[in-house]
Amino acid sequence: MIVAYEELAETLTRALEHAGLEAERARRCARIIADSTRDGVPSHGLNLFPRLIATIRSGVVDVNARAGRVSRAGGLERWDGRGGVGALNAWDAMEAAIAGSRAHGIGCVALANTNHWMRGGTYGWQAADAGVIGICWTNTLPNLPPWGGDEPRIGNNPLVMALPRPGGHLVLDMAMSQFSYGVMAAYRERGEMLPVPGGFDASGVMTSDPGAIEASRRPLPIGFWKGTGLSIVLDAIAASLAAGRATHEIPAAPERESNLSQVFIAIDASALGSADEIARIADAIVGDLGTRYPGQRTLAARRQHTRDGIPVSDAPWAFARTCAQG
Amino acid sequence: MIVAYEELAETLTRALEHAGLEAERARRCARIIADSTRDGVPSHGLNLFPRLIATIRSGVVDVNARAGRVSRAGGLERWDGRGGVGALNAWDAMEAAIAGSRAHGIGCVALANTNHWMRGGTYGWQAADAGVIGICWTNTLPNLPPWGGDEPRIGNNPLVMALPRPGGHLVLDMAMSQFSYGVMAAYRERGEMLPVPGGFDASGVMTSDPGAIEASRRPLPIGFWKGTGLSIVLDAIAASLAAGRATHEIPAAPERESNLSQVFIAIDASALGSADEIARIADAIVGDLGTRYPGQRTLAARRQHTRDGIPVSDAPWAFARTCAQG
Repeated sequence: MIVAYEELAETLTRALEHAGLEAERARRCARIIADSTRDGVPSHGLNLFPRLIATIRSGVVDVNARAGRVSRAGGLERWDGRGGVGALNAWDAMEAAIAGSRAHGIGCVALANTNHWMRGGTYGWQAADAGVIGICWTNTLPNLPPWGGDEPRIGNNPLVMALPRPGGHLVLDMAMSQFSYGVMAAYRERGEMLPVPGGFDASGVMTSDPGAIEASRRPLPIGFWKGTGLSIVLDAIAASLAAGRATHEIPAAPERESNLSQVFIAIDASALGSADEIARIADAIVGDLGTRYPGQRTLAARRQHTRDGIPVSDAPWAFARTCAQG
Repeated sequence: MIVAYEELAETLTRALEHAGLEAERARRCARIIADSTRDGVPSHGLNLFPRLIATIRSGVVDVNARAGRVSRAGGLERWDGRGGVGALNAWDAMEAAIAGSRAHGIGCVALANTNHWMRGGTYGWQAADAGVIGICWTNTLPNLPPWGGDEPRIGNNPLVMALPRPGGHLVLDMAMSQFSYGVMAAYRERGEMLPVPGGFDASGVMTSDPGAIEASRRPLPIGFWKGTGLSIVLDAIAASLAAGRATHEIPAAPERESNLSQVFIAIDASALGSADEIARIADAIVGDLGTRYPGQRTLAARRQHTRDGIPVSDAPWAFARTCAQG
């Protein structure tokens, strides 16, 4: 069904208040979830809301915990997420990185002991909306076999890179797996094959059959050995810089995933020169591409859904409405 | 043939002195090239040396130019490479980023108007050897069609991420194309197919036949649309932060490739906590992987070639020896 943005955001706000979040934090978290849904990424918006509530109810997520700084050296900070709400912790960490970039040109916050940040792109848009370059990533539970292995030892560790641009920010939001389980399920339900090989079947043969990969639990990392290496180094930098947990220490069950490690970097390019110059360069790149730029589809979805309403799946929307009634 | 490290480094030093580099800079540049060759990456070491000399002789590379800072805000700096030797400019930029990280926790140098940096991993090892996390990338000439396109509009923009570790640094050195032209040529010469699809043939069908991809000039970006997006955003951040040229403004002929834009980030994690803790976390990750970590093969090649000598290709080695005689 279709709902208006404000109805979605208000419903989620009330639901999160009932879940125990303070009013202002419930509002912020609701808007993060509503924004992702409006931006065409319901898989990391409303569709994740039932899991958020489940992890609050099970005690994995502590609604009263707030991320806080534990050490600092210039523009570099280490924060402890204290098991709080992942999206709020990540938002606060990127806010601190942005503040660091205002003071030091470049700011970095490494965040330990946090929870699922929902849509990674949120924090790229946050940085770009503030007029700064944003780079951030998270580790995850082990859910991806490395190239050459058949057991899930590495995380799909989304990497986000964002550049502000008046005509539309460039925002890359890229997980390490070629296809998420959500995308594979959608292809299977439509009776379609994946457009490129997405994993191995149970006998170890590379395949474009989404159902065979869902069954084997062996999706492919992007670039095979290359994405494997990128996943490993993102995990290692996040865990060591935050002094937090690495992927292999994170419970493999999604409903128990916790103690994630994340990195947020903000760069205030306007401290070096004119913002107009940056916009001119980004415009020239976009103009010459002859293809979509990262973030373009998100912005188009945002405009369409702001105008026409947001398509939502029945089950999570019904769940949110029930939660909102307390 | 096999040469000892010192013979390779000394020969390249003399050759670079004859090409006009000052003694100390010739020595540094020679060691960068010799190190890459010793580390098992001759494609970006000795085998690129003839191209370096050709670009010096043609005036693309100015041996007397030195990169220098043009603006600064805290730990963030913008440098101008002034068309100098790419490997030396990149080395100096990473040195400055490392110095920035000592002073500000995190340091970043954006470098415009530079030339081919040879092996990107060099600057990751440089950071890790200094005990800091290093992240750097460069744009390149347009040499890769974006997903959905058939003309080379994007660069293969190597991305480097390094983490210091006493037992062996983690160093990822990853270009955006699934296979380089050098790797594809090697498979073709051995009469082998690529292990995974590497591009399109002339009729637009995805193929693992290296010769067909060399002919079509349509190699694949890693992760198809994902590597396409990553390439675009790396280019956009580098060009705008450095106020330099973007990929679409760089001459498409390798011998005229110039005015590259690069970013160097260094993070001094030891400013936040103990280096032992970082090493412990990285060791635990490596220990649990059950697969190679990024940088492991490089270190193994380094040890073997330091002990047994370095295999070199006849033509570039003969060329270097001729240049060394002046």
